[in-house]
Parts: sequence; structure tokens; C-alpha cells
Amino acid sequence: MLRFLTAGESHGRALVVIVEGLPAGLAVGVDDLQVELGRRRLGYGRGPRMRFEQDEVTIVGGVRHGRTLGSPVAVEIANSEWTRSDKWHAEMAVEAGATQAPLTQPRPGHADLAGMQKYGFTDARDVLERASARETAARVVAGALAKLLLRELEVEVISHVIQMGPVRASDLKRPAPADLAVVDESPVRCFDPGAEADMIEEIKATAKEGDSLGGVVEVLGYGVPVGLGSHVHWDRKLDSLLAQALMSIQAVKGVEIGDGFEVAGRRGSDAHDPIVYDAADGYQRTSALAGGVEGGISTGELLVARAAMKPLATLNRPTLGTVDVVTKESTVSFKERTDVTAVPAMGVVAETMVALVLAGEATRKFGGDSVAEFVRNAGSFSAALREGPLG
Amino acid sequence: MLRFLTAGESHGRALVVIVEGLPAGLAVGVDDLQVELGRRRLGYGRGPRMRFEQDEVTIVGGVRHGRTLGSPVAVEIANSEWTRSDKWHAEMAVEAGATQAPLTQPRPGHADLAGMQKYGFTDARDVLERASARETAARVVAGALAKLLLRELEVEVISHVIQMGPVRASDLKRPAPADLAVVDESPVRCFDPGAEADMIEEIKATAKEGDSLGGVVEVLGYGVPVGLGSHVHWDRKLDSLLAQALMSIQAVKGVEIGDGFEVAGRRGSDAHDPIVYDAADGYQRTSALAGGVEGGISTGELLVARAAMKPLATLNRPTLGTVDVVTKESTVSFKERTDVTAVPAMGVVAETMVALVLAGEATRKFGGDSVAEFVRNAGSFSAALREGPLG
Amino acid sequence: MLRFLTAGESHGRALVVIVEGLPAGLAVGVDDLQVELGRRRLGYGRGPRMRFEQDEVTIVGGVRHGRTLGSPVAVEIANSEWTRSDKWHAEMAVEAGATQAPLTQPRPGHADLAGMQKYGFTDARDVLERASARETAARVVAGALAKLLLRELEVEVISHVIQMGPVRASDLKRPAPADLAVVDESPVRCFDPGAEADMIEEIKATAKEGDSLGGVVEVLGYGVPVGLGSHVHWDRKLDSLLAQALMSIQAVKGVEIGDGFEVAGRRGSDAHDPIVYDAADGYQRTSALAGGVEGGISTGELLVARAAMKPLATLNRPTLGTVDVVTKESTVSFKERTDVTAVPAMGVVAETMVALVLAGEATRKFGGDSVAEFVRNAGSFSAALREGPLG
Amino acid sequence: MLRFLTAGESHGRALVVIVEGLPAGLAVGVDDLQVELGRRRLGYGRGPRMRFEQDEVTIVGGVRHGRTLGSPVAVEIANSEWTRSDKWHAEMAVEAGATQAPLTQPRPGHADLAGMQKYGFTDARDVLERASARETAARVVAGALAKLLLRELEVEVISHVIQMGPVRASDLKRPAPADLAVVDESPVRCFDPGAEADMIEEIKATAKEGDSLGGVVEVLGYGVPVGLGSHVHWDRKLDSLLAQALMSIQAVKGVEIGDGFEVAGRRGSDAHDPIVYDAADGYQRTSALAGGVEGGISTGELLVARAAMKPLATLNRPTLGTVDVVTKESTVSFKERTDVTAVPAMGVVAETMVALVLAGEATRKFGGDSVAEFVRNAGSFSAALREGPLG
Repeated sequence: MLRFLTAGESHGRALVVIVEGLPAGLAVGVDDLQVELGRRRLGYGRGPRMRFEQDEVTIVGGVRHGRTLGSPVAVEIANSEWTRSDKWHAEMAVEAGATQAPLTQPRPGHADLAGMQKYGFTDARDVLERASARETAARVVAGALAKLLLRELEVEVISHVIQMGPVRASDLKRPAPADLAVVDESPVRCFDPGAEADMIEEIKATAKEGDSLGGVVEVLGYGVPVGLGSHVHWDRKLDSLLAQALMSIQAVKGVEIGDGFEVAGRRGSDAHDPIVYDAADGYQRTSALAGGVEGGISTGELLVARAAMKPLATLNRPTLGTVDVVTKESTVSFKERTDVTAVPAMGVVAETMVALVLAGEATRKFGGDSVAEFVRNAGSFSAALREGPLG
Repeated sequence: MLRFLTAGESHGRALVVIVEGLPAGLAVGVDDLQVELGRRRLGYGRGPRMRFEQDEVTIVGGVRHGRTLGSPVAVEIANSEWTRSDKWHAEMAVEAGATQAPLTQPRPGHADLAGMQKYGFTDARDVLERASARETAARVVAGALAKLLLRELEVEVISHVIQMGPVRASDLKRPAPADLAVVDESPVRCFDPGAEADMIEEIKATAKEGDSLGGVVEVLGYGVPVGLGSHVHWDRKLDSLLAQALMSIQAVKGVEIGDGFEVAGRRGSDAHDPIVYDAADGYQRTSALAGGVEGGISTGELLVARAAMKPLATLNRPTLGTVDVVTKESTVSFKERTDVTAVPAMGVVAETMVALVLAGEATRKFGGDSVAEFVRNAGSFSAALREGPLG
Repeated sequence: MLRFLTAGESHGRALVVIVEGLPAGLAVGVDDLQVELGRRRLGYGRGPRMRFEQDEVTIVGGVRHGRTLGSPVAVEIANSEWTRSDKWHAEMAVEAGATQAPLTQPRPGHADLAGMQKYGFTDARDVLERASARETAARVVAGALAKLLLRELEVEVISHVIQMGPVRASDLKRPAPADLAVVDESPVRCFDPGAEADMIEEIKATAKEGDSLGGVVEVLGYGVPVGLGSHVHWDRKLDSLLAQALMSIQAVKGVEIGDGFEVAGRRGSDAHDPIVYDAADGYQRTSALAGGVEGGISTGELLVARAAMKPLATLNRPTLGTVDVVTKESTVSFKERTDVTAVPAMGVVAETMVALVLAGEATRKFGGDSVAEFVRNAGSFSAALREGPLG
Repeated sequence: MLRFLTAGESHGRALVVIVEGLPAGLAVGVDDLQVELGRRRLGYGRGPRMRFEQDEVTIVGGVRHGRTLGSPVAVEIANSEWTRSDKWHAEMAVEAGATQAPLTQPRPGHADLAGMQKYGFTDARDVLERASARETAARVVAGALAKLLLRELEVEVISHVIQMGPVRASDLKRPAPADLAVVDESPVRCFDPGAEADMIEEIKATAKEGDSLGGVVEVLGYGVPVGLGSHVHWDRKLDSLLAQALMSIQAVKGVEIGDGFEVAGRRGSDAHDPIVYDAADGYQRTSALAGGVEGGISTGELLVARAAMKPLATLNRPTLGTVDVVTKESTVSFKERTDVTAVPAMGVVAETMVALVLAGEATRKFGGDSVAEFVRNAGSFSAALREGPLG
């Protein structure tokens, strides 16, 4: 029962997020949020903007003496560009006035044109400021809180890049939570050293042509308890909630649980995870094709979800044809210095969306208004499970 | 602002669905629902159960003299097996009593084990009766109502199979609404005649081995107005809602919008749909990679969404290892006569989930308590768009 | 996290309700539902229709062998008039056709006119069939399930009539759960014998004049645990949820928590419940003005909520002026044999709405997918509270 | 389809509110918000704190060049005490640390004790900082936005005090929107000059004794279009939503629609509003007992809702008994300089809650992503109504 709202425009004063439904007593510090925001800036292909971006984070409400109060947690992420210079003050002024530089040429591959049509704007900036992936910084803060809550249950959510443009990680060796630092140190957040080198080559070649790259990230949930989500109603299925959360990330066009599309091509005899039992570990699966979700319920196995991101639609060199909405003349999408790829960073956003779903479902299953109550309920479920016939 | 709840177990007395939020004045007949329920039984690989299944449909509330009242529409789908014989009466009795035949061997690839652990059952039937894809019949009724509403806006949602096991439709010729009868007549609901023949061969070969097949369906939305969904908040993005809806279908493990995973491997210069304009048709895209959604908003182009289904986990011959929860001994998943594949039928369910999302977002954008008001508002939006700079 | 949808028209085939979110393992029988539906027919002033009304109740889904499955529970309440005769079959036919007897004279005090305007109807029956209080039978079934769940926590929700027309129960002696049979045996469901006699006299006098009566009921929640609802957000406050639930009952125009409006006239020094402590019982209040809710949170004291019902707007003799929407001529609201008052029955509906709120908040606080887990979590919260400084 | 979250503690750095669902193109200025926040400080009985409170308001997101963007609007209300001095910096620090002054004596009539028990706190400040009515400042900002939107439909929501302690406005002359300045200039926000004088006397007498007063406010909605809310489902009834919204205000214990409890004591022949018609004004009611809502739907008549507030529970002189949770000894609730009454200010909060409900229902009925579209749809509904049989 977590809910959150985010607000703020890319070049506006700040982003804000309010997260409602966290139990009281969760240890939270600004550093916890800064770490995740810093991880969101990771990646070889990130351009100068990201390096300069220094997020000044303020916890405005919901935390006292380092612990949540059970009340909504509000966090503001100041826009360092806004604070440092007045470059955007006029263009993004809250006060009545007119833009000096309306953007009348909607960019293909962005929300620009459809957003202008939906909302009745003639300046694409009225759309793109909110549609920008900058907004995910606010989500990452919410996700950081979700991760802290999950950590109380010893659940860890990490990610790694498994495809960059056409280059795929050949051998699917999955990082464990202890490997996260290694992944984050990789300029492409890839855990397969061979693929990593190829990915970097691909980025360099793409950069030279002023083009951009998409890719695929894999999110892994370690320690996810059995029983999150439910088969009883379509909108309570864990995989369905994960798909919604991941597909909501800017530029994501595909989502898989476990081996997803690949499993669709297999025979049934080779597509499911057999169940075994031993007294020490209880029930387990001998393979992991299902990605830790069966019938919309977490199985207690490793949770695996993937998100496919299209290449950035803002390019440094090649052109995408568009139209000026005022003159109605054909033109090309405006160019600006941009990153080659946002896939490594997107992985961090994907982690946070998965963490938000898991934390929401965990609070639903275990209830609890304080962390102590939440953890106690989770613990007594585990104990009852272990001691009963299903353990 | 549509919401719906479904209820009912696979071998119980009936399924029920209540749909709340439909405008008044929508022409609805039992035949409209029967047609869609019949389409849900399509497909070469369907076994005898599906052929016998005759859904007796009763509209219990919300419709008077062939038109909706604005009040919740309730539909009951009687289970013909329940009516025809008393075979399931004891096993699925509502009255207190005990099962004669507890299923203590959870089947891999199903909700069985995780559901038993979550809910504290020792009889897998307490899970599988609800987890069964039989439940999608109730959704199809809801979806049929959504389709009727969308038809008032001249929106049509259809589907076709583009992959059956390893066999893919080679050339992606997409069916138009007028082609739906052709698709439905294909035993595999494939619009590519060459692939159709290969798919049938694959099914035959698989059947011989008692194995099962998954596959991929593509859902197409024709006439979807620009402006459904929104970029302004993560949980309002149309693609995110579509992903949730499609991933909630039993056995679906992957979802794509437009060319999805394939686009992730392209360069940015080759991954987006250029915008052009002419006075007659307004703004259009010259390609369709994005699947009709940009920035979480429908663009007015053809909507394309895909769902990948894993093979059925209940097999006629090969075995999947499992454990008896009472004896704790290893065993194999029980066998029963089953279909080779449910992919063709799943396409119809996928259509209905997409239709439910689109109808929900259309009622949100256009408001309206009667169909007349809803259509009038949609029309004046179109007119204003056509006459303004964004038209 | 309970949600429910109801459907069905007053003279249609049946009412249906689906309740989603109940834990598995709750003992439920058709009798439990029948008892509450029978209580909904209580009351001196009820006319012949209520006596004939025999609700044939069918649990369609969600219950097996006398226990909930965790899946949505669907219940159908057949309309006995529909089954017994075909009187309403044409007028309420689902099939296309036209009414033989359109009601074109909207009745004051009902949804008729506003509903016709909102939904674009010219036949008031298209509104009144759903607006009718008959719909509360479906809610009572949902409420009966909620009461069964609350009983697992030893919470009991009862009601009594404290005002009938101008006659008020003088001394507010509140019935305990053990007194419910006494209350239900009172023809006006009043626990104050003196007031009861006066109320009956008032009803007789009113009946003689063909007029109708409103009144006030008080709902009491015994054993409500401390900590339901929350002060942290406006829409999580228990009193706010109770007010919504009670005001949603047909003809209810006022709601109070505890002594409500009366407390507004007091001085602060005489308007709050002092806190005391003793080792045996923990913290307690020495008065009960707040109605068991402070700051939007249940205090563990007796929960008290009241609902004021306006008199029935359908009268046997006096006339209410209205207009024919076709002829636009003034006329009087049509008369029909009706009850003098529905206040005693409304009390039972009010109980069920309160029970639904409490059960929803209890599942939110304690979580749990099975009754065992739900009760265990509630118990460990109580134990921790008792043993800690707040116990 | 408006939703909003608020956050922030009474003595913390700031309050924040995010409002999601406003259409684009709504003219909004900081002044619009300041005016309403200033009105929230009105009232004779307000103590020194309110006079000093200067709310520094910042629109953080969702507004550009004086117009909403359709994206979530975020507003921060800085706590002037926080900025002006560091008095609260340590006590309300976000950083880990311990309080120097734990409040271990929960105050009767507040959330303190129940909140401590629910969330596991031993310092009442962890509850009261969020439970404080200071939080309503954030709601008032949301309500100010709702009022601006309603004004586009020529809907005005105002309030006046009709009871202060035991003193009632004798003759119910209701202020029109043009009278709002007169009401606001009254130190008790009462529109009845005779009662106003008595109320002031009552406040003076109460102040002398160090006691506090409750009272009743009436909220009036002028120009509310017919057709908001619905009879079709319990949770869509306008009166039910209003009751929830009003009862959620701190210290409100009773809610009425129209004449509420008073109507419950009348005969049916004298309790409903007759319908008349003339060609110029369409359908109208000749009395206003129902408060502008019938069957859960707005009738187009004057909307009337009332909220009863208990006296403040923090007193200057008299004592309320309580217990120290550490020592378990009896004591009295701590005293502090406080207001005699918050009823005049509560009226402004009640207006904003009513405005939020009406704006939410209006966006649901009329849809629209821009103000132009929203207003156009509302206009064409009105036109169609006027020209049809229900006009």
C-alpha cells in the first residue's frame, strides 16, 4: 500500500516526490538518497550535463531524527542549474509571461507532438519539460526508500546491462548483491567483461557518427519472499505490476519476466522450472526460467525482470524529419549535445521501479505501521511456512 | 474510469464479472458477448474441453431494453459442465465439507505451489481453480463491452498470431479490421499463409510428442484517437497500462509496444518514426516502430502491442518433476488431456485487455455519462484539433 | 484492502456483489448471509413488499467447502418477484425493446430528475431501478462477510434506533452485542423501552395520515482494536472513511462520530475524554464523547457512529409537486403502497457499512492472506502493545 | 480525477502538496494561493501564533508562465518559524539524533495516544507534528487550485459560521458569493449580525476562563452543475464524497448535507423539495432541504454541506486528565497559549475540501486535458440539457 506522486519539470526549480504508506521507524538519511541519485548518473555514454548535475536533496517531511514517522515522506531535489545560474529562470518562470523561444518543431520519438495535441500547446517545451527522463530522479528517491524498507526483509534489488545496441552479454552470469560495486564500476554496467568491451566499442563507434543506442537491462530481486502478488485478480498479479512499473520508464518499449520472449519459442517440456524439496531449504526450483513469478505470485526464487529501451531520440548528428507546427513546413528535429545511451542509468531506474512494486506488495501482505511490526509479521509468516507442510 | 471485478472458479457454478463506469445508452446484447466468448475458443490446438464448453451467458444487471443504464453491468457465465452433470458438485461445493481428492502435488509452471504457500492451503485445487485461464472468459465479457464502447469512436481492436513455438510469421503483413474473419478462420489465427502452414505442422509434431507450445500475438488498435494516456505521471502512461493489462494474462511472460525488443538493438537514427504533414490528413508518421505510443500518449497512428506466452505447463506426455507436499517425495506433475497451445485464444484475451485499457482512458479523456455525451466530446476534441495548429 | 462492486436493478433478475480482498480460510455459509438479509427486513413500519421479499442467495464463487479461497467472493441475490411471476420481465427486459410504461414524472426527494438529466434518460425507471434502496441488499451481503472477518478479531458491530421522527430515545443506554436479539425483536429496533412505545405511536399516527418518517440510528463497534485508520493523510482517517460509508446509504443526510453535533456546542473542558491507566486494562478513557476515534485513529474504546435518515420520499397519501418531463405540466408525485419508515432496516445497512470500513482497515493494518495469518498478526500487535510502554 | 498528497510536519521545514490531474492552461499565480492561505488565518479567536504565521509559498512544478502544464502541480509552504529562527531545528531535525524533550503525556482529544500505540512511538511529538491542523494549509493550497478550476465553470464555493459554541445563527440568511468579503470581515465569519455579536461575547467569556469553543460551519456551492456524482455505486455518491472530505478535517465530528439531522425529524410530506418548471430556468426546486444533492447527484440547486467541529482540545486553563506513558502516573494535559476557537478558519478548510470534491467530479464528468476542452465539454452538456426534454 505504497503510493507516490512526483512533480517538477526538467529545467524548473526542483523535482518533488511524496511517498505515502511507509511504516514508521525506518532509518533514512539524505545520504541514502544521494547514493542512489549518484548511481542514476552512471554510464560511459553520459554526456556533460549528467556529470555537472549535482542533486541537492532535501527531506522536507516525514522523517525526524533519522527515522520515518509513518507520515508521508517528501523529498525535494533542487535543480543545480536553476540555483547556479538564471539561464532558465525566464524560460521556466512560474509567473505569467510568454516564452522567448517557443519550440514549434516536435521531435519524433518523444512525447512532443502527441502531448501538444492532447493538451493544446503550441510550444513543445510545455510537454518535454515534464516528459523528460529527468523526472526519474524523483522516482529514484522513492525507490531508494523502498529499497531501505526491503532491506529490512533482507531483500536486495540490483540490475545490470545485458544488451547495448546490438551487443548482447553472451553468457548470462548474473551478479549477486555483493557484485553490485563491480557492475557500477563498469562504464556500461555490464557484468560480462567480454561483452563490456564490445559494448564500449559500440558506443565509441556510435558516438563518432553522432548516433545513439538502446539496450536491455535485467533487474534481479534477491531474497524476495514467497507470496507477493496474487493469482486471484488480474490487477494483483506481481508480474503485471512489474510490467506496468518498468514500461512506465521513459523510452522502455518491452518488458520480460524471466526468460520472456525466449521461453515462448520453447516446448512446454523445456519451459518450466521443476520443483524439488529438501529439509534444509524447503521447496526449490531447479531452473529459473519463470523469473521467480508463477501465477502472478513470487515463488521465493530469484526474481528476474527485463526492460528494453529504445535508443535516445535526440541525436547529435543524424536527422529525424519533422514539421514546424506554425509554418507547417518540413524540417529536421533540432540537435543538441546529448548522450549516446542512457541504458546503464536506466537500469538504476528500473531497480527502483521494481523495488517500489515489491515494497508495496510486501506492505500489503505483511501490514504493519512500524518497521518492527512489518518485520515481525514477515518473520512469523516465514516461520509458519517453514514449520507447516508448505515449508 | 472503468473498473471491473471478476469472480468464479474454473469448475465452479459460474463466472461473474461486474463492470462499473460504462456510460448509459450503449447498445448491448447477449449475442455481442457470446460472439467474443466463442472467439476465445478458437484455435487449432484446442482440445475437447474447449469444443464442449458452451457458455450460457446472462446479463444480470445494468442493461435494460438493450441499452446500458450507466449502472454497473453484471454478467454471469454459467459453467456448462456444472449444469450438465453433478461431477463437480461435491468437489467444488460451497457447503462445508472435505475434498475427496486433494491435489497435493503442485504443478511446476502454475500458481499451485506459491499459491498454497501464500494462502496456507494443502490442496492445490484451492489455488488452481481460480488461477486457471478459465477466468479470462469473464474478462472477455468485460472486454466485449469495452469494444462496443470503442466502436462508438470507430476504434477497432483485433489480434493475430505472429509466432507459434519457434515458427514466426516471416513478413509482417498486418490484418485490417476487415480481415478479422480471415484471421479467425485460420486454425492458428495467423494472417501469413506461409507461416500458418508451418505453425500447423509444428503443432502436429508437438502433439505427437504430447508436448505444448507457446508463442506471440500482436494486438492492433485501429482508429485510436491521439491523446489517450499521458506523459505527466508514471502510472498514467498508456504503454505502462497496456503492459500491465497484457502481462496479467495467464502464462504471458513478455510484452512489447511496437517493435519493442527489436528496436532496442537499432541505432537512434533508425529507430524513430519521422513526422510529416499534409493538409488532408494532418500530422502523420512515415513508419510505425513506436507502436502508436510516444511518451506514454497515443499518437493516432496504429496501436501495436505484443504479448509472449509460455507453453502450457500441463502436458499430455512429458513429465515435469515436482514434490508431494504431504509425503515430501519427488514425483511428476499429473497429466491430463490438454491442448497443445492456447496462443490463438490468448490473442482474443489480449484484444480484450487492450480494449479495456483504451476504453478506460477514452472515458477519462472524454468524460460523459451517456454514449451521446461521450461521443460528442470526442468529436469536438477531434474538430478542435483539426482546426487548430496541431491538426 | 477490501474492495467490492455491486450490480443489479430493483426489479431486475437479481443483485450481484463481488468482494475482493478477503483472506482465505474464512468460514462462510449461505446462512450467514441469509441471517443478515433477514435482519435488513426488520421493522414495524415495513409494508407488504418487504414481508414477501424472500432473498434466494447463491454463493457463485470464492468459497469452497465452507471456506473462502482468497479469491473474489461473488454472491447473487435472486429477486423473488422475478422468479415467481413474469410481471417485470417485459418492463425490465435485457433485450432490445421499448418500455410500455415510461415514468415521465420524476419524484422529488429521489435521484429521478438529476439522474435523468445526467444520463440523458426520459424514463425515470432507468434511474430509480438502480437508485432504489433494494441495492443495499447487495451491500448487506458484503457487510456480512466483513462481520465474519471481524468476528475473528472478536469485533462486533451492532446498531439501534435512537430517533424515530421527532421521538428520541431519552436515556442513551447502549445495547451490548448480547442485547442484539432484544433490539432486533423491538419493532422499531430501539433499546429504550419508553421511547420504543412512543416511536410506535408516532408510526401509527403517521401511517394514518399516509405520511412517512425519518430518524437516526447509532452504530456501535465493540472490541475494535486500537490503531485502525491513521492521522497521516486525510483520506486514511477512520472517521472520514466511516462518514463516506454511512452517507452513501440511500436517504442518509447526516453523520456523526460519537456525540458529533452535540459536542460542537460544548466547552473544550467538557468535550474530551480523559485518559487513565491501570495495569490490568492498560490505557482507557473515562468518557466516550469522541466515539472511539481520535485524530482519525481508533482508540480501542467503543466505536460510535450515527446516521440521520430523511423520511421516505414516496408517500401513501400526501402529495409532492413535480413536473411531467414530456408535457412539462405540473403534477404530483405518483403514490404507491409504501412503508412508513425504513429507519430500523437502515440500521442494519449502517452496521454493514461500518463493518466494511473496519474490516478493510484491519486487513490493511494486519495484512495476511489467510485468516490464520491475519489473526496471528493482530494478536502479536496486541501482545507487543500490552508489553510495551503504550500497553 | 484529481488526486493529491500532502506532506510535512507542523514545526518542520515546510509543507508540500502535489496535485495531479488538473487540466493544462489553468491560470494560476502564487497570489491565488496566498489569498486562500491568508483566509485560513481568519477569525477572532485566533491566538498569536496564527498572526505571526507568514506562509512563504513556492510553486515548484506544474506551472509555467502563469498556466498549468497538465503535469502535477507541486507547492511548498515554508514554515516561517523554521526560517526565522533555529528554535525547532534540533527538535525536528531530519538527521539521526535524539529528542531533548520527549512528550510522554498524550493529550486527550488528540491523535497522541492512539497514534503512539499504532506506530510504536513513546514521544507524542512523533504523532502530533503530523496530526496538527497546520497540515490543512497544504490542503488549502490544493483547494485553491480546485476553486480556480471550478471558477472556469462559474462555480463558487464559500462558507460561513452558523454556530459558535452554543450560539446559533438564528435566521439562516445565506451569503452569496458577493457577500464573501463581508463574511471574511466578520471576526467570527458569521453572516448574521445579531448572532455575530453573541458569538463574540461567547468567545470573550470563554477566553476569560481559558476554555475553548467548537461550532458549525456551512459550506455553500453556487453554480454547481447538475449531474456531479452518481447514484449508480455507493462510492460515487456526491454526498458520500463530501462527507468523507469534511469529516477528514481535524476535529470535525459531524457532517450534514442540506438540513441533515433536522430533516430526519420531519414528516415526509414536509421534508422534500418539490419540482417546478418554467421555460426560462428549466427545472427547479421550490425549497432547499436536500442541500442540492438527491440520490448522490448534484441537482443544480444550491449545494449545502455542514461540518461540526469539537472545541480545541488544547486549553489555556482547565485541565484534562492524562497519563505519563513512562511513569504511568496520572497527570494533566500540558497547557500552552492557544486559540479559543478554530471554527472560522475551519470554514475555509471546509470550502477547500468541498471544492476538491466538486472539481474532481467535474473533471470526471466533463473530461478534458486542457481548460478549453473541459469548459467546452461542460458547455455542450449544458446546451444539450437545455435543448432536450430534461432542460
